[in-house]
Amino acid sequence: MRNLLIIGAGRSATALINYILKEAKEHNFFITVADADIALAQAKVGSSPNSRAIWLDASKPNDRRDIISRADVVVSLLPPQMHLEVAQDCIALGKHMVTASYVSTQVLRLGDEARQRALVFMNEIGLDPGIDHMSAMQRIDGIRAKGGKVTAFYSFAGGLVAPESDDNPWHYKFTWNPRNVVLAGQGTAQFLKNGRLKYIPYRRLFRQYQLIDIPGMGQWEVYANRDSLLYREAYGLQNIKTLFRGTIRHRGFCDAWNALVRIGLTDSAFPIVGSEKLTYYDLMDAFLGVSEYTGTLKERIAQLIDVAPDSDVIKKLEWLGLFSKRRIKVKNGTPALILENLLLEKWAIKPKDKDMVIMQHIFEYELDQKKYKLTSTLTIKGRDGADTAMSQLVGLPLGVFVKLLMLGKISTTGINIPTMPEVYGPVMEELEQYGVVFSEEEEEITGA
Amino acid sequence: MRNLLIIGAGRSATALINYILKEAKEHNFFITVADADIALAQAKVGSSPNSRAIWLDASKPNDRRDIISRADVVVSLLPPQMHLEVAQDCIALGKHMVTASYVSTQVLRLGDEARQRALVFMNEIGLDPGIDHMSAMQRIDGIRAKGGKVTAFYSFAGGLVAPESDDNPWHYKFTWNPRNVVLAGQGTAQFLKNGRLKYIPYRRLFRQYQLIDIPGMGQWEVYANRDSLLYREAYGLQNIKTLFRGTIRHRGFCDAWNALVRIGLTDSAFPIVGSEKLTYYDLMDAFLGVSEYTGTLKERIAQLIDVAPDSDVIKKLEWLGLFSKRRIKVKNGTPALILENLLLEKWAIKPKDKDMVIMQHIFEYELDQKKYKLTSTLTIKGRDGADTAMSQLVGLPLGVFVKLLMLGKISTTGINIPTMPEVYGPVMEELEQYGVVFSEEEEEITGA
Repeated sequence: MRNLLIIGAGRSATALINYILKEAKEHNFFITVADADIALAQAKVGSSPNSRAIWLDASKPNDRRDIISRADVVVSLLPPQMHLEVAQDCIALGKHMVTASYVSTQVLRLGDEARQRALVFMNEIGLDPGIDHMSAMQRIDGIRAKGGKVTAFYSFAGGLVAPESDDNPWHYKFTWNPRNVVLAGQGTAQFLKNGRLKYIPYRRLFRQYQLIDIPGMGQWEVYANRDSLLYREAYGLQNIKTLFRGTIRHRGFCDAWNALVRIGLTDSAFPIVGSEKLTYYDLMDAFLGVSEYTGTLKERIAQLIDVAPDSDVIKKLEWLGLFSKRRIKVKNGTPALILENLLLEKWAIKPKDKDMVIMQHIFEYELDQKKYKLTSTLTIKGRDGADTAMSQLVGLPLGVFVKLLMLGKISTTGINIPTMPEVYGPVMEELEQYGVVFSEEEEEITGA
Repeated sequence: MRNLLIIGAGRSATALINYILKEAKEHNFFITVADADIALAQAKVGSSPNSRAIWLDASKPNDRRDIISRADVVVSLLPPQMHLEVAQDCIALGKHMVTASYVSTQVLRLGDEARQRALVFMNEIGLDPGIDHMSAMQRIDGIRAKGGKVTAFYSFAGGLVAPESDDNPWHYKFTWNPRNVVLAGQGTAQFLKNGRLKYIPYRRLFRQYQLIDIPGMGQWEVYANRDSLLYREAYGLQNIKTLFRGTIRHRGFCDAWNALVRIGLTDSAFPIVGSEKLTYYDLMDAFLGVSEYTGTLKERIAQLIDVAPDSDVIKKLEWLGLFSKRRIKVKNGTPALILENLLLEKWAIKPKDKDMVIMQHIFEYELDQKKYKLTSTLTIKGRDGADTAMSQLVGLPLGVFVKLLMLGKISTTGINIPTMPEVYGPVMEELEQYGVVFSEEEEEITGA
């Protein structure tokens, strides 16, 4: 295999393209980067001789198939809703396909066809999902190999700002999709605790956070993800008693975010008519409804959300400018869209800022009538606001996997996520060169 | 005009078909009722000589257009998302069109074409929307005609159970779309109070209800609708200070419904995996999360929602069977779907039950330096569980309007809702024969 096609040259493509261009010369790969913005694609491949940038409107089936037909392996970095069409083309044209996105039910249905044609369709091989699957399965398989039985699995991850660049009271900046941050947790979080199902509805999610210790980094907050049960089968943990996945945030974040939820600012169902004529003050005032509260806007909001007017939560809201008479910029926006627009400005990562990714897995397992707890933690910082840890950790696993695939080292065909040793072994090994090293602590659990 | 086509013979068609068949003989109308279920359409027209039932799959454009081309007036009782296609056919074929549904933005865009072709497209001419528009505009125009200026407008409506058939602790039964009842209020309610915008997010909606007096019927609860500001322009109330629309429920309903919201049972975003393997007990237990509460399930739920275990709220939940070990019937259902399925059984209207519709408008207006308050109230009961007040009040205004249109008495072309005197005058007058009589109280407002 020689020809790699990368569809999409946006932010998530940079680390992948840089990695694979470096490998291209040694392995005689030829890299085609296709994007509707040809200048962007050109800038990403630069002057590398083993590559070209081409124009492609991926929504045009004929153009897309023409380009795909000339590749051996296709990486789709398109928006998730477009993966299905690309996957159907790859099946029809007999091409392998790789994405960092969640597998949709429709794509999953192509599994038999992919296997019949001996095609490799690897998905969820970025950071989260991606490195979380691989690092967890490596340890789960390790425990099983020595005869142990995993009884509890906790997995936490967060895209954060590094302490040296942390200069705002929320201790947070955007390093990934802001919309997902604003809408995070809407729905019902589901997990298992001591053999019993647990649900947390959105309205209680940011109140019921827990605290975790990250070695050398102190305590952090974790709120439950919606999908803790999703990978029970994929990880072979059908009989596990406790299974919990969560998102990591700085101390104080959840209480303040919960205030935004309580006020109503994360609602995305209904637009505020004429929002562009309002100030943030007007918006907050309107959310007080016909209330019994008295005093300044700040004092009344404090009463609404049951905190003191000089509390950290109110200070965070004030820092965002929510009590100010600045005009809202979004026209007929939902509260969530208005909030997103404000946070984009306030939580922007600056050119010299460093981001930080934290991931922690905790496994409890039984072996020879004893109980153990294994804690496995990754903390890794980016270089600056453009070359973030987040973008590196999404792009590098994709790149390493694509290299292995093109070198003929992957035998697992069909629609998959990276839970098998032939994938996580070499990928995680090579990622160590890039600083992806989990520190491990193990202890015996004694007493009750 | 002689030929009326009614597309859709379901529950909402009965009162319309019965009314128009009675009128058909006198006015020499010919009524065609089209439905994918030909037996249902046949049953609805019966043996009336001025009518026929035909088979129609409305999703097939050619069949649909063929049938529409032979009519003068088309009533669409199809699901709302299909109105656009029917409207486009009616424009192309030069037919008038009538619906009881909300006007969509896409349908609204056909306005110029409809006017150019002198076509009448009347929408929102059922009960709510429908009778609410007509009865309100009648009074608003009346106040204006004598030189008054409307400063506040409150409008409340509810589809309820009549006191003589009220035999459950919720004092509520379904007389219309159960899904809409379960999902009611999700989003942000918006209204005007003393010149200021007010928003109530879903999480506070059922807590911030108000009480209203219905003459002879005591006090009722009202929670805010999402759309209070929607008709400001249509009613000509651009400069009004207070504008509020709400839904009427029995005393005690909102607190108990708020408990369901707080527990998380109205969430429709995420399915509970394997819900068919759980009991209601398991579901409620799971919603307690990892909580600090102790005692029986009932006691722990009471603690979660801050009420006493022997409170009316808990009694209502218990009556629904939410603490029981009965198995849930819905497979992989969202909490909202599981709740809807349970309520369908518990809140079913029985064959001999009577329903009741209450509608109340309150207008505050200024006239000759004095302030007045006009309260206009309708309460009307159904005959039984099949012939409900709800279905009568949706079907009759449609029927009366269609008759007027076919007799050439409607001159307002384009896409409209029934806010004009030539519509509300004769329709409301004829509805009086069917018991649709608003009682009026007027008083001068003195003091502050």
